[in-house]
Amino acid sequence: MYTSLRLLLFSSLIYVSICQETFDPHTLPRPLILETHVKETPLLSSADDDVTLHCTSWRFAVESNNLSPWRTIPQECGDYVKDYMTKRGYEVDLERVADEAILYASSVELRGDGKDIWVFDVDETLLSNLPYYADHGYGLEVFDSEAFDKWVDNGIAQAIRSSLKLYEEVVKFGFKVFLLTGRSEMRRMVTVENLNRSGFHGWDDLILRGAEDQKKTATQFKSEKRHKMIEQGYRIHGNSGDQWSDLLGSAMAARSFKLPNPMYYIP
Amino acid sequence: MYTSLRLLLFSSLIYVSICQETFDPHTLPRPLILETHVKETPLLSSADDDVTLHCTSWRFAVESNNLSPWRTIPQECGDYVKDYMTKRGYEVDLERVADEAILYASSVELRGDGKDIWVFDVDETLLSNLPYYADHGYGLEVFDSEAFDKWVDNGIAQAIRSSLKLYEEVVKFGFKVFLLTGRSEMRRMVTVENLNRSGFHGWDDLILRGAEDQKKTATQFKSEKRHKMIEQGYRIHGNSGDQWSDLLGSAMAARSFKLPNPMYYIP
Repeated sequence: MYTSLRLLLFSSLIYVSICQETFDPHTLPRPLILETHVKETPLLSSADDDVTLHCTSWRFAVESNNLSPWRTIPQECGDYVKDYMTKRGYEVDLERVADEAILYASSVELRGDGKDIWVFDVDETLLSNLPYYADHGYGLEVFDSEAFDKWVDNGIAQAIRSSLKLYEEVVKFGFKVFLLTGRSEMRRMVTVENLNRSGFHGWDDLILRGAEDQKKTATQFKSEKRHKMIEQGYRIHGNSGDQWSDLLGSAMAARSFKLPNPMYYIP
Repeated sequence: MYTSLRLLLFSSLIYVSICQETFDPHTLPRPLILETHVKETPLLSSADDDVTLHCTSWRFAVESNNLSPWRTIPQECGDYVKDYMTKRGYEVDLERVADEAILYASSVELRGDGKDIWVFDVDETLLSNLPYYADHGYGLEVFDSEAFDKWVDNGIAQAIRSSLKLYEEVVKFGFKVFLLTGRSEMRRMVTVENLNRSGFHGWDDLILRGAEDQKKTATQFKSEKRHKMIEQGYRIHGNSGDQWSDLLGSAMAARSFKLPNPMYYIP
């Protein structure tokens, strides 16, 4: 126990000193909820255009990773986020990310030694939980991990079509595919079944949160797992995720692809 | 020569192995122009709404760092980018980034040993070159470094107001301020004068590209300079820049703040 703690501290020190990676000390198992500095940006005026401008600006701040950890979307942006998610905006943005990733993947020269890999997150990256979030205000409600786990246990999340296209291309190009998800190891079976049913096959590894990872932030957990991949000689060419915590930290991929997600934030 | 090459290769290897940082081999002095994989995403239809959706999606892809290096903005998005830059969108987005950065800066506990720092880029971060880009299609024209340098030599770029506010707050909080810019060392004097005239005073260091940095990408140049700061015992709490190459790479800040810029791309 003492040794592992020392090891953990030591690894953290390495991260901090080499990559200036900072881990949030407020660690939670699947931490959508963080008590942090929350600032309510005031509306510009009550006009519809101003609400849209305000919410567009908020969404930009989310997608460019400028915000402090947040618990829910701004109340006044509920309709804006719902429109974005259910009309064409989300789909168009998803397709563009997939197209850019395919373009990059096609340009990578694989060495043929089985060490060239692509990492995918699962939720809101390969699988869409939109029906769950539609029932919970598209991010207006504070995340309820029990309710979400019940949804996950149904195993009925649909594939994000553009991500399935990217996934299939990446496999065809000859990359090994590693799935790296914040879902618990306890949900391995339902996750495998859900992925298979949605058309995802042939991955090389599915890495879930084990008991030892429960207190880590997603950034820390995923960075550690990527470090292990590199130690094993893998070259992480691409990484696709809807959260910056899927992509940043240390042992980052050569190219990271941020899928849109204005509904929730995982540190 | 051979030794420096070996040293360069060695440093690159360190980056690659530790932080999976990859440097583009196509290095140019101030490389806005890269010959890379350019994909024209097709328009959805000819309707105005579809052009807006298409261009909004493109801008998201820019700001979330999903695009391969690009030379010019998409032709069909000329009006969209001009509107964004000249109406309220750009200003609202800039203000939000500054507000988020101030919020974070106010939460940092400084140690009082003079080693807590904030890094700022200059162009499109502290100073706005909008009049120059207005004369060059807001990014529709391929970057012309000679014409741009002539503009810089006028020394008349205005402060970005929200960045000046952030700058002043950061200085007031007690951070040391390091300016890290891709401008050439040859333009130190005009840069200092322009910054002073625009209200920026009291920085601790202004780092420009020296002769030895001319062939490096901005990511490489800026990562190396941040590494030096850390070697000297500085703690980089915040980093503000309009380009991902200001922020990513290695020796990253604890928090990075990406200012909007849909006009040009620097790798």
